[in-house]
Amino acid sequence: MAGFLDLLLTDPVLGAHLGADADLAAMLRVEVALARACGQCGLIPANAAQVIELSASDFVPDIDRLARDTLRDGIVVAGLVKQLRAHVGEPHGQHVHFGATSQDIIDTALALRLKGIFELFEARLQTLAGTLLDLESRFGANRLMGRTRMQAAIPITVADRLAVWRGLVGRAQSDLPALRDRNLILSLAGPAGTADRLGDRIGAVREAMAGQLQLTVPDYVPHAARDRIAALGGWLSQVTGALGKIGQDVALMAQNEIGEIALSGAGGSSAMAHKQNPVLAEALVTLARFNAVQVSGLHQALVHEQERSGAAWTLEWMILPPMLGATGTALLHAQRMLAAVVRIGHL
Amino acid sequence: MAGFLDLLLTDPVLGAHLGADADLAAMLRVEVALARACGQCGLIPANAAQVIELSASDFVPDIDRLARDTLRDGIVVAGLVKQLRAHVGEPHGQHVHFGATSQDIIDTALALRLKGIFELFEARLQTLAGTLLDLESRFGANRLMGRTRMQAAIPITVADRLAVWRGLVGRAQSDLPALRDRNLILSLAGPAGTADRLGDRIGAVREAMAGQLQLTVPDYVPHAARDRIAALGGWLSQVTGALGKIGQDVALMAQNEIGEIALSGAGGSSAMAHKQNPVLAEALVTLARFNAVQVSGLHQALVHEQERSGAAWTLEWMILPPMLGATGTALLHAQRMLAAVVRIGHL
Amino acid sequence: MAGFLDLLLTDPVLGAHLGADADLAAMLRVEVALARACGQCGLIPANAAQVIELSASDFVPDIDRLARDTLRDGIVVAGLVKQLRAHVGEPHGQHVHFGATSQDIIDTALALRLKGIFELFEARLQTLAGTLLDLESRFGANRLMGRTRMQAAIPITVADRLAVWRGLVGRAQSDLPALRDRNLILSLAGPAGTADRLGDRIGAVREAMAGQLQLTVPDYVPHAARDRIAALGGWLSQVTGALGKIGQDVALMAQNEIGEIALSGAGGSSAMAHKQNPVLAEALVTLARFNAVQVSGLHQALVHEQERSGAAWTLEWMILPPMLGATGTALLHAQRMLAAVVRIGHL
Amino acid sequence: MAGFLDLLLTDPVLGAHLGADADLAAMLRVEVALARACGQCGLIPANAAQVIELSASDFVPDIDRLARDTLRDGIVVAGLVKQLRAHVGEPHGQHVHFGATSQDIIDTALALRLKGIFELFEARLQTLAGTLLDLESRFGANRLMGRTRMQAAIPITVADRLAVWRGLVGRAQSDLPALRDRNLILSLAGPAGTADRLGDRIGAVREAMAGQLQLTVPDYVPHAARDRIAALGGWLSQVTGALGKIGQDVALMAQNEIGEIALSGAGGSSAMAHKQNPVLAEALVTLARFNAVQVSGLHQALVHEQERSGAAWTLEWMILPPMLGATGTALLHAQRMLAAVVRIGHL
Repeated sequence: MAGFLDLLLTDPVLGAHLGADADLAAMLRVEVALARACGQCGLIPANAAQVIELSASDFVPDIDRLARDTLRDGIVVAGLVKQLRAHVGEPHGQHVHFGATSQDIIDTALALRLKGIFELFEARLQTLAGTLLDLESRFGANRLMGRTRMQAAIPITVADRLAVWRGLVGRAQSDLPALRDRNLILSLAGPAGTADRLGDRIGAVREAMAGQLQLTVPDYVPHAARDRIAALGGWLSQVTGALGKIGQDVALMAQNEIGEIALSGAGGSSAMAHKQNPVLAEALVTLARFNAVQVSGLHQALVHEQERSGAAWTLEWMILPPMLGATGTALLHAQRMLAAVVRIGHL
Repeated sequence: MAGFLDLLLTDPVLGAHLGADADLAAMLRVEVALARACGQCGLIPANAAQVIELSASDFVPDIDRLARDTLRDGIVVAGLVKQLRAHVGEPHGQHVHFGATSQDIIDTALALRLKGIFELFEARLQTLAGTLLDLESRFGANRLMGRTRMQAAIPITVADRLAVWRGLVGRAQSDLPALRDRNLILSLAGPAGTADRLGDRIGAVREAMAGQLQLTVPDYVPHAARDRIAALGGWLSQVTGALGKIGQDVALMAQNEIGEIALSGAGGSSAMAHKQNPVLAEALVTLARFNAVQVSGLHQALVHEQERSGAAWTLEWMILPPMLGATGTALLHAQRMLAAVVRIGHL
Repeated sequence: MAGFLDLLLTDPVLGAHLGADADLAAMLRVEVALARACGQCGLIPANAAQVIELSASDFVPDIDRLARDTLRDGIVVAGLVKQLRAHVGEPHGQHVHFGATSQDIIDTALALRLKGIFELFEARLQTLAGTLLDLESRFGANRLMGRTRMQAAIPITVADRLAVWRGLVGRAQSDLPALRDRNLILSLAGPAGTADRLGDRIGAVREAMAGQLQLTVPDYVPHAARDRIAALGGWLSQVTGALGKIGQDVALMAQNEIGEIALSGAGGSSAMAHKQNPVLAEALVTLARFNAVQVSGLHQALVHEQERSGAAWTLEWMILPPMLGATGTALLHAQRMLAAVVRIGHL
Repeated sequence: MAGFLDLLLTDPVLGAHLGADADLAAMLRVEVALARACGQCGLIPANAAQVIELSASDFVPDIDRLARDTLRDGIVVAGLVKQLRAHVGEPHGQHVHFGATSQDIIDTALALRLKGIFELFEARLQTLAGTLLDLESRFGANRLMGRTRMQAAIPITVADRLAVWRGLVGRAQSDLPALRDRNLILSLAGPAGTADRLGDRIGAVREAMAGQLQLTVPDYVPHAARDRIAALGGWLSQVTGALGKIGQDVALMAQNEIGEIALSGAGGSSAMAHKQNPVLAEALVTLARFNAVQVSGLHQALVHEQERSGAAWTLEWMILPPMLGATGTALLHAQRMLAAVVRIGHL
């Protein structure tokens, strides 16, 4: 474990999908799939594809050199391909990365990692929905003061408020499939989006690669068209916003004079032994506001000039992983917090 | 016309949908629809509903008093209902606003206005798509230098770049119907979301109102669940982001040494008569970055505490209309700019 | 009065400084000062300067034409100068705008308007500081529960909490002079920042203009260097952030079960006659979050390419006036809210 | 080295100041300084202070346990103090953390780390200013096309443009001392800001601690007053905005048809051997836009409720370190890029 904030502010499980190792592994999977597809379509020798696949399986990149090359090139792929070609050796090494450009590899590798991440999020949302349903069955009939504009309004039931929470989580669930379809796509379009070296085989190569990687082939060149990434950011912030609303409600319900919720295991203070702080509720608000800030960056990155922009694309790299991480963390915290509920409302 | 920036930075047509007058008119339509629905369902006397409808048709609110009441109440509806009741007179005035809360009226009035706005956006996107198609037929075969990371890469055709622009516009079009369904909803849930005064007639009243207003009845209480607004903001910024990418491309193509695009009627300078500035291209970038900033505010407003939050909701009022306006303006500018294209690329 | 939200969300007094009329008037003042300075320095005939000044005093621009020209040119100045020259008539009209560029006029006009706005803000902060001091003298000795992480911690006094509020307001006051110095500057640098037509008289012309307009001459060309605008945005959001913190505290103190503050004249509800909503407290939170969103846009505009960027500069025009307006509104609301305090804490 | 993006997107030197280890070390320094100050002022036994200091010197926290405690408590300090007390042992362990609260320790530890970070930034800005001066002496007299609104305007010299760049860097330098004074402060105010356990010794303890740590004692309780953090964020984004403007200019100057700058060692492409991408120029734009997004989060965190807010404060922890890192990285990249300049403009 790297640091003391890791459990509060990061998601260790998701971290494995987001880290540099996972990224490299995914990029290698993409290069191998490309080689196999090109081999199948006769663009490179069939045995070259086999050798590349075999060779990639025991390829260990020199990370320090990759980092230096990435600083020089702005992307890792040129350096990575160079190392992989050397590892494969000639005459086959030259066939690595046939017809592709860096962005094809990196964007497709992102899609591969998103696949696992979406599964994780889907499962956690499902669990959370179950927890909320369970809370409703346990406490739904309890009385709660309905509150509007921070003032007591009229009495409602706990089920009334939980219905809002459940709806938010439910719509995050039902919005996921379309988002998944939009993002789990193959990128293969070559240096300027015209897939020039792949010629009339481009359709066949794309289908073959997509089949191997279990992605779909988009009907557009995705290099400079980043609406799917902005939509992804919107959904992530929709999730953390929903959980942030729940967290804000819980923090308000947990106020001493109000006591509309009781949580086991709330956090302690370094100076006041009597305090029971609703730590996770506050963290959910934090994570919601964090993602609400970040989403702006993914929208700024829509202004992606010409065939491929280094500036706009790199901004995505800086913004998207922390947003994914915040979403994963919020899902963990929401589940932890709601599983610790001892009581909501009053009989 | 109010100011010299009105044509550059606002959309006069859309302004009519966004202004205070349109908002008041929509709120009155909602109150009338509520009265009719309550009359049909036997919650208020049938003739009360008729009188309210008739009376609302010549009701002219005292705006100064409304503004003062809005400052006091934080929302306009309490003051508006008071004035409308006085205008209707007793015994029927008391039946105005039966069972509703301010947010029901304001959110439903927003949905009514969004209906017209979506139609406007849809028509403009359609026109723009046609203009892009026309540009492709005129210039698609021309040569263009493909550019990546701000450097010449390999030659492409104008059609290649236009395909990216067309895809961005096309996906904005195809994303619109789901957004429309999500936002064109009735809000009728009463002061704490429980529609308490409407009792077991709530379903019937909602159906009747929604039918009159041509909105749908959501399967959730929309007061504190604002994901549809964040999604709306995301789409608006998707549109301006797409047009901002086009604008950025055009500004770069129009550079003197590059000359890959020629536009008629480009803007003049106060000091340099020879200059032909790609004003609309720059404005598209501005509007894209503007909406990319604003979208963050709608996501902050997802943290909407308890049954209804004044703070979070009011933030939507400040952010959403300028975003709608920027989107309308960008659509106008993109059409103007692309209609002025004299040439793209080279033979 | 234009709309029912005007008192809740805008600042009528500040509106006069921000509107198109004030902007035009300020731009004309700048053109007149430029003509006088150029006349004094022998760059244009002395009587031309006199005629321009006299003529400008009864010049009424054709706003509709200005708006059309602004749409074409991206800035108003080319059209304005054309109209002003026609109004002045030849042989003197040609001497209007000597050696300047649009941005010189617009940025200097902004500085002129900021002067009055800063005075307004300074006076309001002063009043607010006095109100806080008065609250301290009235209620400072009262008991209050100190609260951390949304939980009761240990008892404090009202004076303890007021000291934090007062410090925030006090630092906003003490940060103002440096901000004022930074922003109340003359911009006169010509089309590409080199003041080429002003030759070796540039220093003298600048001093003369700055003297007339009571601005200072910066030691740099301000066209593409926008750090002063970002700093201005930071201060505005510092003010609204301070008032938003106070508003959030008040909203929490005003909760029914807590009752640590009593306000006269709190807002009513359309559905619940018993409610006393802390409307202004919530509005302060809204305005703080609004400015916290907007400040990002002014920082995006720091990426201001080459000698002058249309895209980045226009973004300032869209972002800065609403931020100024939100700050003015928040100062009014904070004063209203705190003047309505009947009690804080408990004896 | 952890990942292949580390050199492109992070600052290894700064990383040492920002990491969890540096944070823990700084927190321990604060606890030791507190113990010494309390010992000097007679609040804890003098030999307890000595034992605590000695004991802290070989204290190695159990990070896994700290992380679990941080998840529970929302802050690390309660768990850290517990471990440190156990390590010190009784009877002296109980005197660790006397009178302080978590936020005192964490905020003061931030100030300690900022001291080194400011020194680093100051030195790098100084180096950069020197590099710019050197470029001016080498290329200042060269011709350059002045460009406004993305169009050629009138010829200028390289010195004209460099003057803008130098001014931006120079103002970032001259703004630093005030920022440093504002942020290099001691926080010691106890659980609710009233320093209740320190009684009338509070002034003396603060002076003693501040002296040891070479920080200043603020004239306010800093727990809930976060304007200094927002100001810090503003300055960081001012720096990256300045460098982003330079980067944007360089990327535009480096366009093939324009060729106004020549850089050695520009980045390669995985697919196009002939390309020389201005990687660092683009990265500077990215880092500027990144910080421009983030600054919004620090301003959201100004709405810091009551005596101490978990939600708002934790948001700072998520936003500030990446902003510091982006600033450090941008300073490194700007220096690298400008040191690689072979030519600017034309003879």
